[in-house]
Amino acid sequence: MTIQNYITENKDRFINELLDLLRIPSISADPNYKESVFKTADEVKKRLVEAGADNVEICQTKGYPVVYGEKIISPSSPTVLVYGHYDVQPPDPLDLWTSPPFDPVIKDEKIYARGACDDKGQMYMHVKAFELMMKTNTLPCNIKFMIEGEEEVGSDNLGTFVKANKDRLKADVVLISDTGMIANDIPSITVGLRGLSYMEVEVTGPNRDLHSGIYGGAVANPINILCEMIASLHDKDNKVNIPGFYDNVEILSTEERAEMAKAPFSLDEYKKHLDLSDIHGETDYSTNERVSIRPTLDVNGIWGGYQGEGAKTVIASKASAKISMRLVPNQTPDEITALFTKHFISIAPKSVKVKVTAHHGGEAAVTPTDSIAYKAADKAMQTTFGKKPIPQRSGGSIPIVALFEKELGLKTVLFGFGLDSDAIHSPNEHYGIFNYLKGIETIPYFFKNFAEMSK
Amino acid sequence: MTIQNYITENKDRFINELLDLLRIPSISADPNYKESVFKTADEVKKRLVEAGADNVEICQTKGYPVVYGEKIISPSSPTVLVYGHYDVQPPDPLDLWTSPPFDPVIKDEKIYARGACDDKGQMYMHVKAFELMMKTNTLPCNIKFMIEGEEEVGSDNLGTFVKANKDRLKADVVLISDTGMIANDIPSITVGLRGLSYMEVEVTGPNRDLHSGIYGGAVANPINILCEMIASLHDKDNKVNIPGFYDNVEILSTEERAEMAKAPFSLDEYKKHLDLSDIHGETDYSTNERVSIRPTLDVNGIWGGYQGEGAKTVIASKASAKISMRLVPNQTPDEITALFTKHFISIAPKSVKVKVTAHHGGEAAVTPTDSIAYKAADKAMQTTFGKKPIPQRSGGSIPIVALFEKELGLKTVLFGFGLDSDAIHSPNEHYGIFNYLKGIETIPYFFKNFAEMSK
Repeated sequence: MTIQNYITENKDRFINELLDLLRIPSISADPNYKESVFKTADEVKKRLVEAGADNVEICQTKGYPVVYGEKIISPSSPTVLVYGHYDVQPPDPLDLWTSPPFDPVIKDEKIYARGACDDKGQMYMHVKAFELMMKTNTLPCNIKFMIEGEEEVGSDNLGTFVKANKDRLKADVVLISDTGMIANDIPSITVGLRGLSYMEVEVTGPNRDLHSGIYGGAVANPINILCEMIASLHDKDNKVNIPGFYDNVEILSTEERAEMAKAPFSLDEYKKHLDLSDIHGETDYSTNERVSIRPTLDVNGIWGGYQGEGAKTVIASKASAKISMRLVPNQTPDEITALFTKHFISIAPKSVKVKVTAHHGGEAAVTPTDSIAYKAADKAMQTTFGKKPIPQRSGGSIPIVALFEKELGLKTVLFGFGLDSDAIHSPNEHYGIFNYLKGIETIPYFFKNFAEMSK
Repeated sequence: MTIQNYITENKDRFINELLDLLRIPSISADPNYKESVFKTADEVKKRLVEAGADNVEICQTKGYPVVYGEKIISPSSPTVLVYGHYDVQPPDPLDLWTSPPFDPVIKDEKIYARGACDDKGQMYMHVKAFELMMKTNTLPCNIKFMIEGEEEVGSDNLGTFVKANKDRLKADVVLISDTGMIANDIPSITVGLRGLSYMEVEVTGPNRDLHSGIYGGAVANPINILCEMIASLHDKDNKVNIPGFYDNVEILSTEERAEMAKAPFSLDEYKKHLDLSDIHGETDYSTNERVSIRPTLDVNGIWGGYQGEGAKTVIASKASAKISMRLVPNQTPDEITALFTKHFISIAPKSVKVKVTAHHGGEAAVTPTDSIAYKAADKAMQTTFGKKPIPQRSGGSIPIVALFEKELGLKTVLFGFGLDSDAIHSPNEHYGIFNYLKGIETIPYFFKNFAEMSK
């Protein structure tokens, strides 16, 4: 049976199985969903067993478990280590969802749910592609699955797991579908990822909330101060204004930038799609450069004082913000976290107290385009899309790519089938059925090519 | 029976009646408490009737009702119009209360509850002082009560009520207890109030929440932009940086400022009380000046993006803030609201959309110290505190003082018995039993003095 025939016969089941997985709210950031995250791990284990994996195990960590499974066809065959994650982002703001985030619906040939693309949908393509190869007796490589539950909170315990399981995880390449491509008719493969340093800051003024009439003008208002401190983190050219921030930033050559600029991109469509009158970013760089080869600093959340209806004349005691920085190759999260912390404390006026905490970080990564694995992926996409995929740097971060290189000595192929418009991390996340099925179709070709090219 | 004897005999009941009133959560800012606000009006009506008032009526408005009641002893006697409010501020942040805000408790001779001081406690002193004068046959003036339910949301419908009831509200002076005094052993009378202009702003960047990796650096982050806009609203001397803002500000003479500086004040105690390493405010003005004769701009609340536990790598679509300005005599709220709106829109970069809305405003006011009413209040405090009260400007706003002057031609005496440390508008609001009973004791002396001095 051909790949395409198998998919045609089973696609309704493939979709329904994914919908079931999406119904479990595996929000790793919120302790209230602990039970659901564990339940999702159980479910992933069950699906791997059903698809034909051996030695399937829920490997406990200090946090959420890693689900491991494998199929070893022969010691001499090449081995592909598939990584994915079963946890999802929090769904808020809930009121902007047009359907409940954990009650998936199909509209216009797209599956709407939190995790539909990131990463349950993309991860599950590998489980179904594996099932396909097992059922059609075409699995040409050894395969190992490592599906974790803490990607959205920084993969805190994956490093320990990987270090403790180096033998079990031995492979020739890591294959991950947790990125996107340019468009359904413009396939691309991500070859660069930004790193991440994610901070939380708290500014305290007076020791309690105060009446803004009685105290207004005489004490430091922590919200005003926090705004001033945040505002000072960018200069007039929208460069990050933290001493040393750009010291190690990789500078691309004019040729490299010219090559990048060839990727199809319409600024008008970009603005229209986001309903923007104007774009905004670092002077002297294009939009595509701003989201790939340049580091950034963004406030991801801010809160303080009265947020209810109407008016409350209060000076808050505290104001807080979550601030993250995307990093490029050679900027390490540890170094940037330290620079940020030192700088943020140094710019606080004496009239407030400042607390700076680091959430997770991750290294930037660049993956090679001259490897056998990259070529196998490139050829697989050519087969199923009828076009050569474009190598592309992405603005997102998958910190574990650097981890796998460091601990396992393995390069990664970022074999993503999502689109920027899938609204991952946003309300109304969705994943095209075209993309889901195209992934299941393309992955077996990767295995076939990789086995042949490795000979 | 003397005033003091009547209070001694009835003080437990006076306290228990106030506690009952505090149990009704009359939060005018939150529509969820609508029923409770109306219920509080009913309760105030009942209490006025029981104390001996005539023609007690719940006067409906477009919002919450005004409770009116009166006792006319003779057409030739002077008339005192008592104003107060039965609505309260929202209690949040709830987790900072050591006891529930609407379940009053007495600790260290203080009543803890939302509204204990502002203004249920201070308003109810007048009801009990009235009862005392009725029961001891000592009421020397006509008295009219006007107790509203929208003070904490800007008294939106009081103007209409006052205009429609000019005859009924005819009086010689307005008496209000909704301010404080310097300390329990330093009586003072408020003679100036700041005005208020309260705004809400919303900054919109992209049309939906975005992944901060994929879009970070290329689109305007509305939180960063809002912070930059807010930061720009003060200059390096902490002056409000809105064109025209200071144009009409009343400038006090060196002599006036020297007179003000005589009020007892310890900066060390002020800082210690608020746990501040340093104060913060407009250059070249003292703390007391900053909160009385100078206008201010404070952010009262800010929100946007992810505020939950952990990390979410999102660029929010919107960020919002509540921003209020305290005004001094000659600055009108309408003018300042217009200046703010125009300026805030003008400083927005093209990459965002800005919405500016006005909440309530109020005029600043200065009350005379050479009136019969002021002298009657001064003498009453001398009798019960044994010390001449200090005339003092306050930083707070009671916009209705200007309204009464304009519509009824009446001056106001701000006869407050609260303390700055009562934490009004904050968690753990409280009111000293000493202050509550001292108010009930002092008010009848005001009536006695005012009747005698008016002859």
